[in-house]
Amino acid sequence: MYPSSLIKLIEQFRRLPGVGEKTAERYALLISESDTEDVTEFAQALLDVKQKLKHCRICGNLSEEEECDICRDTTRNHRQIFVVQSAKDILAMERTGEYQGVYHVLNGLISSGKGILPEDLNIDSLTERAKDAEEIILATSATLDGETTAMYLSRLLAQTAPDVLVTRIAHGIPSGGLLDYADEITLTHALTDRRKMGG
Amino acid sequence: MYPSSLIKLIEQFRRLPGVGEKTAERYALLISESDTEDVTEFAQALLDVKQKLKHCRICGNLSEEEECDICRDTTRNHRQIFVVQSAKDILAMERTGEYQGVYHVLNGLISSGKGILPEDLNIDSLTERAKDAEEIILATSATLDGETTAMYLSRLLAQTAPDVLVTRIAHGIPSGGLLDYADEITLTHALTDRRKMGG
Repeated sequence: MYPSSLIKLIEQFRRLPGVGEKTAERYALLISESDTEDVTEFAQALLDVKQKLKHCRICGNLSEEEECDICRDTTRNHRQIFVVQSAKDILAMERTGEYQGVYHVLNGLISSGKGILPEDLNIDSLTERAKDAEEIILATSATLDGETTAMYLSRLLAQTAPDVLVTRIAHGIPSGGLLDYADEITLTHALTDRRKMGG
Repeated sequence: MYPSSLIKLIEQFRRLPGVGEKTAERYALLISESDTEDVTEFAQALLDVKQKLKHCRICGNLSEEEECDICRDTTRNHRQIFVVQSAKDILAMERTGEYQGVYHVLNGLISSGKGILPEDLNIDSLTERAKDAEEIILATSATLDGETTAMYLSRLLAQTAPDVLVTRIAHGIPSGGLLDYADEITLTHALTDRRKMGG
């Protein structure tokens, strides 16, 4: 019943993650009621992201330059590398203000379910970077694919860069989390990774 | 921390209804990972909606023509007019397949809270159309603003088109709805609007 240009826009919005028919309809109707100037700006922002954005040639982070801001920052520790699944994990970590090393973006996780193999990921350049590193912190998610990837990388790095310290971020009860709401795997992690308290 | 082109796109997505920072970020990151061709198509769909879409000059429905498909449909009853707040209500009603009349889109509701006055809405052309109509069905929502608007229109039409039957869609327990989950106003409506059952 909708005019075809509106239907086309609804279909475009539906391709965004988690957007169903109703939501796409609301988005498209809002666009149809917006000023032409605002919509043109939106369209341009879409095109700009594709035209300007690339992956940092060192770490794989999103950047408008050949090398990202973090890799170009000489005040950071370039011998400590925090390995993440995607560029948005960098943002989450940077918000803590606690990390002064650099990053490496895998652009995915090894997944038998999704058929993603090690060679599909940004791993070759990690083994290359590892040769000059002191520590590689594996910070993939605490999911099946995340653990598989961490396991794979730790074995690979033990061979290719045996002198480098390879660590895994801690898993346990999240801050503010209640013990009786935690699942068994989280509780097991919390127990295994327990640490001595200062007294 | 994100490159400026990505930040700009996140801001654009945030203007969509119900989209927060995290969701906008997910949308923008998906775009940054999509094929250039797909993104160009998305941008074009946005522009097309603004360029091609207009309001039907008779009923106010969204259309790519001067008059919408429904208003041009000579098999429908053009003397029965179903008055709705927005074009998407037409779609919901058309899905029932039960209505054979035409529509009128107000493009909003009278609202003291939002400062929307009768003159801000598509009402003048409704009073004009009402002169040739048999029935005007007021189908604004069962909210405060919806009821206010229905009340206003019913009084206005009583003056400007006194021979026309003005009706209001029924309010009551929704299909599948449990009585003890219904609020008091809905229950009161359900009682008041009760109808005799065939026996």
